[in-house]
Amino acid sequence: MEEHLTVRLNKAFHQKARLGIMSILMTSEEAEFNYLKEKLNLTDGNLSSHLSLLENQKYIKIKKQFVKKKPRTLCQITEKGRQAFREYLDDLEKLIRSLP
Amino acid sequence: MEEHLTVRLNKAFHQKARLGIMSILMTSEEAEFNYLKEKLNLTDGNLSSHLSLLENQKYIKIKKQFVKKKPRTLCQITEKGRQAFREYLDDLEKLIRSLP
Repeated sequence: MEEHLTVRLNKAFHQKARLGIMSILMTSEEAEFNYLKEKLNLTDGNLSSHLSLLENQKYIKIKKQFVKKKPRTLCQITEKGRQAFREYLDDLEKLIRSLP
Repeated sequence: MEEHLTVRLNKAFHQKARLGIMSILMTSEEAEFNYLKEKLNLTDGNLSSHLSLLENQKYIKIKKQFVKKKPRTLCQITEKGRQAFREYLDDLEKLIRSLP
């Protein structure tokens, strides 16, 4: 029996918080930790663990820098992340189009 | 700050196995436990717990019957499930359309 379309959905992206992170990073050159946290309604710990998962898979890059002595954490999508996320979105679109 | 679109995605549906179950039930009048299990590549225990979650929220109905002395478990989408799932799909579509 052929597997259902949903079986191949990329687990790294098919999770609300990470879908939010990737969607934001697809449209902005970079995003700050605190912006993501507020926009996605997450705790520090929660956001950190989702970012680590995406960074470990090389879908995003995380830079830490100091601006006026304050630490800032900036996130960027990688080329690998952009491609993989586009594939995931294509899979989702295909699924949606197959439904009434 | 306005929350990101992904924050309101229905958690009952935004999970690979349950997205698969709901997608199948959207297009078939009813589906058997074993069919879902094979099609979605799940274990008995896994599928059972996802079905229970959907049943508890009244998104699906589960019927047990005997056919030639063999037990069969049949799943059907409810009207509430159809509406809520359609809303979820609309949210997803909106998100996809907002991305490059």
